[in-house]
Amino acid sequence: MSDDQPINDFRQQALDYHEFPKPGKIAVELTTPADSVHDLALAYSPGVAEPVREIAQNADNVYKYTAKGNMVAVISNGTAILGLGNLGPMASKPVMEGKALLFKRFAGLDSIDIEVKHRTIDEFIDTVAAIADTFGGINLEDIKAPDCFEIESRLIERCDVPVFHDDQHGTAIVTAAGMLNAIELQGKQLCDSTIVCLGAGAAAVACMELLIKCGAQREKIYMLDRKGVIHTRRDDLNEYKQLFANNTDKRTLEDVIEGADLFLGVSGPNLLSPEALALMADKPVVFACSNPDPEIKPERAHEVRSDLIMGTGRSDYPNQVNNVICFPFIFRGALDVRASEINIEMKLAAVEAIRQLAKEPVPEEVMKAAGVTSLEFGNGYIIPKPMDPRLLPRVARAVAEAAVASGVARIELPENYMQS
Amino acid sequence: MSDDQPINDFRQQALDYHEFPKPGKIAVELTTPADSVHDLALAYSPGVAEPVREIAQNADNVYKYTAKGNMVAVISNGTAILGLGNLGPMASKPVMEGKALLFKRFAGLDSIDIEVKHRTIDEFIDTVAAIADTFGGINLEDIKAPDCFEIESRLIERCDVPVFHDDQHGTAIVTAAGMLNAIELQGKQLCDSTIVCLGAGAAAVACMELLIKCGAQREKIYMLDRKGVIHTRRDDLNEYKQLFANNTDKRTLEDVIEGADLFLGVSGPNLLSPEALALMADKPVVFACSNPDPEIKPERAHEVRSDLIMGTGRSDYPNQVNNVICFPFIFRGALDVRASEINIEMKLAAVEAIRQLAKEPVPEEVMKAAGVTSLEFGNGYIIPKPMDPRLLPRVARAVAEAAVASGVARIELPENYMQS
Repeated sequence: MSDDQPINDFRQQALDYHEFPKPGKIAVELTTPADSVHDLALAYSPGVAEPVREIAQNADNVYKYTAKGNMVAVISNGTAILGLGNLGPMASKPVMEGKALLFKRFAGLDSIDIEVKHRTIDEFIDTVAAIADTFGGINLEDIKAPDCFEIESRLIERCDVPVFHDDQHGTAIVTAAGMLNAIELQGKQLCDSTIVCLGAGAAAVACMELLIKCGAQREKIYMLDRKGVIHTRRDDLNEYKQLFANNTDKRTLEDVIEGADLFLGVSGPNLLSPEALALMADKPVVFACSNPDPEIKPERAHEVRSDLIMGTGRSDYPNQVNNVICFPFIFRGALDVRASEINIEMKLAAVEAIRQLAKEPVPEEVMKAAGVTSLEFGNGYIIPKPMDPRLLPRVARAVAEAAVASGVARIELPENYMQS
Repeated sequence: MSDDQPINDFRQQALDYHEFPKPGKIAVELTTPADSVHDLALAYSPGVAEPVREIAQNADNVYKYTAKGNMVAVISNGTAILGLGNLGPMASKPVMEGKALLFKRFAGLDSIDIEVKHRTIDEFIDTVAAIADTFGGINLEDIKAPDCFEIESRLIERCDVPVFHDDQHGTAIVTAAGMLNAIELQGKQLCDSTIVCLGAGAAAVACMELLIKCGAQREKIYMLDRKGVIHTRRDDLNEYKQLFANNTDKRTLEDVIEGADLFLGVSGPNLLSPEALALMADKPVVFACSNPDPEIKPERAHEVRSDLIMGTGRSDYPNQVNNVICFPFIFRGALDVRASEINIEMKLAAVEAIRQLAKEPVPEEVMKAAGVTSLEFGNGYIIPKPMDPRLLPRVARAVAEAAVASGVARIELPENYMQS
């Protein structure tokens, strides 16, 4: 019994946190006075007719007179909630509200969750497309693969505002930033590296695609799903896995991990054995991102390989791959220049901004919030900490500049934008 | 030029109100702490998995652990914005945000606007039905007739949460409350009254249907559209107008107003002439609700008929028909007992609660907010004032009780509910 106590305590704390002081985590607040009859005459009829007319004349005025430009919808169908699976839209609501909370907390973006009930992918897409203009941007969340790929790409096509599936691209951006720093510290080049990706879901595919944009060679990537290595002779691959079908005779994790420079785990607990880790090339990089239990425990991994740089999805180990250091800020930057989409240039700009920030001296407050006494760029610190307040200006600015430079911004960068 | 000054001033004030301190009128706020790493571990991963599991096990827990139960969506397609017409979903956004502001201001309900872009009625209905579970209730707004009738009734069928088209029922409830009080003051009975309804849109149809539920006789109602009296020989009537086709030889407003007891105008400015008004029965009741310019100006009407009781849609005349004295509270009551719908029993309970409140002594603060020194039940005060704080407990409680009594409430009335 006593062993369960801390777990039960945390469970009850989490439930209490969601129940009190009132159910849920977000509410709506008014940003204008609504006390007098005069206030209400401005806020509603007859005064509200004025901004209505202005928007009817020029659609851009919706950004001037409504909350749209600072509003992000977090939208899910609940088909892949955290690591818990397909529990339906209602069960996903706490997660989506939590994401909205993070948008507000880290980037000051007003964010609201929308849970969608649907029978077909088409219905989901039609629904989101129909309401998209309400918001400045749309964050898709916890949608199962491979549906998420088609959903995102078709919504990007149909919507005038940025659509971003964070489980794919947020994960990919933070992973790429950490891996690039790790590889640099190991004295290697991404383009020369052999990469093993254990897992073939949304995050895996997005991470590998982004690493390729960063310089990795597709033919040096071995992706594995539940059936083993994804190779060109397999006839059970969806179109997204097919992109990673390797023309190889290797079939198992043990086959491909031998001599590999880089391992990304987005699969399940304890799926990377110490023996397999021992087969990797000198100075390997291992990101074991299965949460809460990684593909291999960091303690065990470091016993086997002293030349390792390792990251996980956990906050209680060094080098946490945490999307929160990306998604609030990539949306902040995109919305602040009214980008029509979040394109590859903006994603790469975010990777670079995150990478660079990890190389800079860390303020005291950040170390304190992280519960450590020292943080310096090196094997144990390759990714900025979530509580680092420099992430907002750095990432948002880099993303906004990239949006302008790549031609998807609808307005110029505001003067002195994010310069503190 | 100087004549335009006050209008231009108000116009600029209204635009400034919407632009500053930041664009729009609503924002999202956090109701739980989000400062420390521990807070975030409760709000998001891993803690958020606990309420997810609870909801997956028992769907009712969504009310315990998320903001759903206090959240109202204000949804429009922008096809009938105020009196301005079909200006599209984006132009409707300031109105919908304004409605959200009123929900929050008057009933403490968290409310968010959703603007829907669609090609067909089916698409609109599918969209709203797909996202409905996100919210505790849905307020439809500014949707043109006759689409609004089909949209509302099909959504009520499909959604598990209350769906309420305020332009219909909010207007009808406040109108009915005022008219019943006026008729009582005039010493008449609704069942004996001849009623002329000028206008045949959403509000007109809903007002007449509700008056019938209150005791009016369908065959004593004359409804007029742009082509005149709606009668049984016409072949150009949609199914909603057909319900009011009167088996009569009368064809014009002048034909039907002679001897009428009750006039409701939901049409356009100055469409009721003093000459027509003069033809009404003794002690008539006239609600001239076209806004901002009524069907007849109150000054002019009272000149013609000293035995008149009159209401308008304007705040600067007595007896304003203003939906805000109903919709925040009917939703408050409905959500507080998790009603599955807002049924006729709840609407009639709201009518009665509003009626009765007008008969009670008025607190000083209410008179002060209304800018008058005395308010007493009588010809000049038949409808409570929007700033009356007693509306919330009275109407919400009456509605919640009616929901329980009529079997659409999913939980009992909270103990001491709205008793102050």
